[in-house]
Amino acid sequence: MYIYGKNVVKSALDANTKINKIYLAKGFDDSEILSGLRKTDLKFNYKEKYEMDKIVDGMHQGIILDVEDYKYKDISILDNMEDALIVMLDHIEDPHNFGAIIRTCEAAGVDAIIIPKDRACEVNSTVIKTSTGTINNMNIIRVTNLNQTIKYLKDMGYWIVGTDMDGTCYTKIDYKGKTCIITGNEGKGLSELVEKNCDFIASIPMNGKVNSLNASVATAIIVFEAMKVRNGL
Amino acid sequence: MYIYGKNVVKSALDANTKINKIYLAKGFDDSEILSGLRKTDLKFNYKEKYEMDKIVDGMHQGIILDVEDYKYKDISILDNMEDALIVMLDHIEDPHNFGAIIRTCEAAGVDAIIIPKDRACEVNSTVIKTSTGTINNMNIIRVTNLNQTIKYLKDMGYWIVGTDMDGTCYTKIDYKGKTCIITGNEGKGLSELVEKNCDFIASIPMNGKVNSLNASVATAIIVFEAMKVRNGL
Repeated sequence: MYIYGKNVVKSALDANTKINKIYLAKGFDDSEILSGLRKTDLKFNYKEKYEMDKIVDGMHQGIILDVEDYKYKDISILDNMEDALIVMLDHIEDPHNFGAIIRTCEAAGVDAIIIPKDRACEVNSTVIKTSTGTINNMNIIRVTNLNQTIKYLKDMGYWIVGTDMDGTCYTKIDYKGKTCIITGNEGKGLSELVEKNCDFIASIPMNGKVNSLNASVATAIIVFEAMKVRNGL
Repeated sequence: MYIYGKNVVKSALDANTKINKIYLAKGFDDSEILSGLRKTDLKFNYKEKYEMDKIVDGMHQGIILDVEDYKYKDISILDNMEDALIVMLDHIEDPHNFGAIIRTCEAAGVDAIIIPKDRACEVNSTVIKTSTGTINNMNIIRVTNLNQTIKYLKDMGYWIVGTDMDGTCYTKIDYKGKTCIITGNEGKGLSELVEKNCDFIASIPMNGKVNSLNASVATAIIVFEAMKVRNGL
């Protein structure tokens, strides 16, 4: 898997990500990154900018690494967390949304993000780039079945809060204690069964004519409301 | 200026945007859009998909229009607004951020967005696409000098709330009455003089290691907090 961009590479170096190959644009001179890369004993492959542009489809800022694939965490990591706040993504498809949600959740202090194995965006180069490297500070858990996972979470004492239209105003929900906030798919929202399995549905009241929020923005508003309640702000 | 994508084109037709030229992918069959376009008496220019891909750099969904440039509103429209909530962008550069902010502000019910003429992203094809067409329901005002505009707003009775680090927790600010929320540049934050001219600085407390929110996400969190206070939620 390729990762690229200065922030992402710095974060990967901090996280001791296993690097397979290093590509640098001629003249690349970020001393912090260069000194980190020198510790790997790998060869520096210098390329022209147009050659770099062919490797990845995004702003690489002169640095691209071929690294080991992302290693998802196992759901058992939740066992040792007290009063965790977790976010579950019910089939988010757009890598920019997934990456933006990781970045927001990291800033908010969310403990883990759960995604499904099928029909959903997985961790890829674009997700990592959009997360600005924050993915290395976030636990991403990938599960086979979201509804079985919801049952598992409920057995552990989690409250399950779905986000959708026509629910309770998101400010009237108690986000204290073990809480799992679920964001639905960009087009379809929550799956029918997932919605049925939620303890609450949180809705964001809107005042515009169009009344649609981007999935990552809606997640940010609810996650920060939850953090506010949890931290007594 | 080109606009593209089904939602954007539908919104432009609803808003009676002046169309200069119509480009359609062969086989395009959205009946609502086609019937709207037929009212213009303009020729339908059918193209192959690869030719459409060359016109714009984005997901055009088979429909591209060449339309008149966006017409900014004059600041005098604020004169007739009671207790307006407005958002000022202190040199946002990324069209995706600008478009996302328009979409969020439209959903929240913000009355107007003010942007500066120089060194900032203006309304372009990417902004309109990212706004999913909500730009047609939003007043965008472009001014020559942000600090003179802040003075003008203060004279009208607006409270000026900048968003930055190291200010008051964003939940402790009174957003009632005439309020202008200012979002800073993606990299540099608020300009020094703009920050000095603010009545309050609102900060979002963060709990992560990286502690950075995307500018459009930070704007969304504060705008929805303001709406919550204003609507007594």
